[in-house]
Amino acid sequence: MTTTEDGWRADAREEATDIDAFAQSDDPQMQRIVERIDTLRASIDNIDMAIVALLAERFKATAQVGALKARAGFAAADYAREEQQMQRLRLVAQGAGLDVEIAEQYREFVVTETKRRHRRIAEAGGDAGVLDVFA
Amino acid sequence: MTTTEDGWRADAREEATDIDAFAQSDDPQMQRIVERIDTLRASIDNIDMAIVALLAERFKATAQVGALKARAGFAAADYAREEQQMQRLRLVAQGAGLDVEIAEQYREFVVTETKRRHRRIAEAGGDAGVLDVFA
Repeated sequence: MTTTEDGWRADAREEATDIDAFAQSDDPQMQRIVERIDTLRASIDNIDMAIVALLAERFKATAQVGALKARAGFAAADYAREEQQMQRLRLVAQGAGLDVEIAEQYREFVVTETKRRHRRIAEAGGDAGVLDVFA
Repeated sequence: MTTTEDGWRADAREEATDIDAFAQSDDPQMQRIVERIDTLRASIDNIDMAIVALLAERFKATAQVGALKARAGFAAADYAREEQQMQRLRLVAQGAGLDVEIAEQYREFVVTETKRRHRRIAEAGGDAGVLDVFA
């Protein structure tokens, strides 16, 4: 965690540690720490797999919403809906023990991407087939 | 979906539609579209609830990783790990039918936020209790 002597490398890229390279350390305490990190990382990978699968379902659903919005002539944005989502996710985050700020960032990420796709569907005349999610 | 006449409003805020306001429409086709959107939105809300719960578990796990990294003197970043995650999530996205670009944006979002938190844990001397996720 010390700053490197060769300043240009620290400038070019932030400091990093290849933790798996410490798995063969002579220090048994270091070995135990690496093992515990590996175990936690395996759980994080499983969580990511579940989240990506859910995101796939989410974007399939929002692509259908996009096609319906385009058919009805609705705009991509719906601020009343966004306000409801924000309040709901804040409560869900508090209940689940997640920093509300992270839930807000998640919402921002999916809503921004979804609206971008809804505009693409509308520009293609309501054909959700333009989206890669259906490929 | 037409451009508004009063340009300043379009500049100030993108065009939007309050879809629920069309639920009482006289046009039965419009009513059916709003109903279908509402049904899809209920599923999207359930998916978001599941994802936020999983994000809570993810950040609990990464907070533990952060405390272990700080104890061992490891940096917040680990590019070997990030490369593995990227390749794995790309495969998972393809298998689940999710645009790989969205999976990459998700990874970017969680990894950036996690590293920011790992630096905060290290600055607090390895005490993960500084993070709101444990509050």
